[in-house]
Amino acid sequence: MLKYEQIAQQLNQYIVEGNFQAGDKLPSVEALKSKYNVSKSTIIKALEALEKKGNIYQARGSGIYVRNQKREGYLNLFSSSGFSDEIEGSHVTNKVLRVEEVLPPKDVCQKLKLSHDTSVYVLERIVYVDGAVLCFEQSYFNKDIVLYLNESIAENSVFKYLEQNLKVKIGFSDIYFAVDKLKSQEAEKLELSNGDPCLRYEQIFYTTTGIPFDCSNLLYHYQNAHFYIPSQK
Amino acid sequence: MLKYEQIAQQLNQYIVEGNFQAGDKLPSVEALKSKYNVSKSTIIKALEALEKKGNIYQARGSGIYVRNQKREGYLNLFSSSGFSDEIEGSHVTNKVLRVEEVLPPKDVCQKLKLSHDTSVYVLERIVYVDGAVLCFEQSYFNKDIVLYLNESIAENSVFKYLEQNLKVKIGFSDIYFAVDKLKSQEAEKLELSNGDPCLRYEQIFYTTTGIPFDCSNLLYHYQNAHFYIPSQK
Repeated sequence: MLKYEQIAQQLNQYIVEGNFQAGDKLPSVEALKSKYNVSKSTIIKALEALEKKGNIYQARGSGIYVRNQKREGYLNLFSSSGFSDEIEGSHVTNKVLRVEEVLPPKDVCQKLKLSHDTSVYVLERIVYVDGAVLCFEQSYFNKDIVLYLNESIAENSVFKYLEQNLKVKIGFSDIYFAVDKLKSQEAEKLELSNGDPCLRYEQIFYTTTGIPFDCSNLLYHYQNAHFYIPSQK
Repeated sequence: MLKYEQIAQQLNQYIVEGNFQAGDKLPSVEALKSKYNVSKSTIIKALEALEKKGNIYQARGSGIYVRNQKREGYLNLFSSSGFSDEIEGSHVTNKVLRVEEVLPPKDVCQKLKLSHDTSVYVLERIVYVDGAVLCFEQSYFNKDIVLYLNESIAENSVFKYLEQNLKVKIGFSDIYFAVDKLKSQEAEKLELSNGDPCLRYEQIFYTTTGIPFDCSNLLYHYQNAHFYIPSQK
């Protein structure tokens, strides 16, 4: 973890433990610089990271203020780094249905910018939060980046494995979604009924250098999934 | 419009008209500085704005690259500045059902940080894209910021009116949503059936100085609304 990420984490802890409310003013950059004994640029980068995550806002010429905390159990779609990180305080488990090497469908080839004869890993699993179905996930991984994958890895956080073991630098992602009705096979996976509502959700993840490495299709359970976006103009 | 916003707009036009594809490299900051004849800091701010909107990404030490264009007709939830801006190329119309001054419900008081005896504007309208229902919108506006509102204003973009006429500086917003089934009265408004899927969507807008001024509840039509989020780690 980089220095500014550590400071961002400590600052966030300071906000949570200090019982700061939305609209409360934080100490100035200068004061935070002394408090954490780091450079001004580290403080600024830490604040930018917290601003992106929706924890704080900076009003020009006025100061740094605390933003609304996201509601408990809500997935933050703006800074998505895997379910485990996002649903704090909850117990996330995965039931892996399938991990194998396959030739990807045509649309996945295009999205991962791979030729049609390049094999990829496909992962299918059901994600549970505190024992309740959150979603069914089908992910295709570019093997140039995701060098190895198996069932026991997929039972835990794939993204933690990618970052910590394979040293993948996860950059940005494109999310597309719409509401729809479940087909009967899909409904079974989510323990729901044919025709029940769902969120059809597609996410393509890129490395920091812009290589698409994960093309995922998710089906969210309409009663168990709630979403939050700290949006900006 | 500030200088860097103008440059961001011109840069975006340059990307679109130049037929840049996702992954294509843009000229360096120095080259853009000369091209647009502005300061380096203006270019950097323009690039940051485009990065936030999901138009480009900057790979450290490597350069500036074009990101995926959002799909046509998709609403960008990260930088939300009203429907008209977001659904480019489409014709957005509103049918206003109600504009009046009311005492707000308790939860709205809390979200707008108003005392229970402070009146607010309530607006109810149906938003259409190319004649098809996009959503039903119910918004409560803090009258300290939204000084005046009437039906003919609400038939057009309220946010353009706020920015251009009332000089409101729109800052950030909190979005919360979940999928649900429509109740019969709601279904009527969306021209759908009782029990059909929908997206229940709440958004609280703040000024740049952190004053909550708009607390909106939206119900999105499940077949006509598609969403995009340029997400970051």
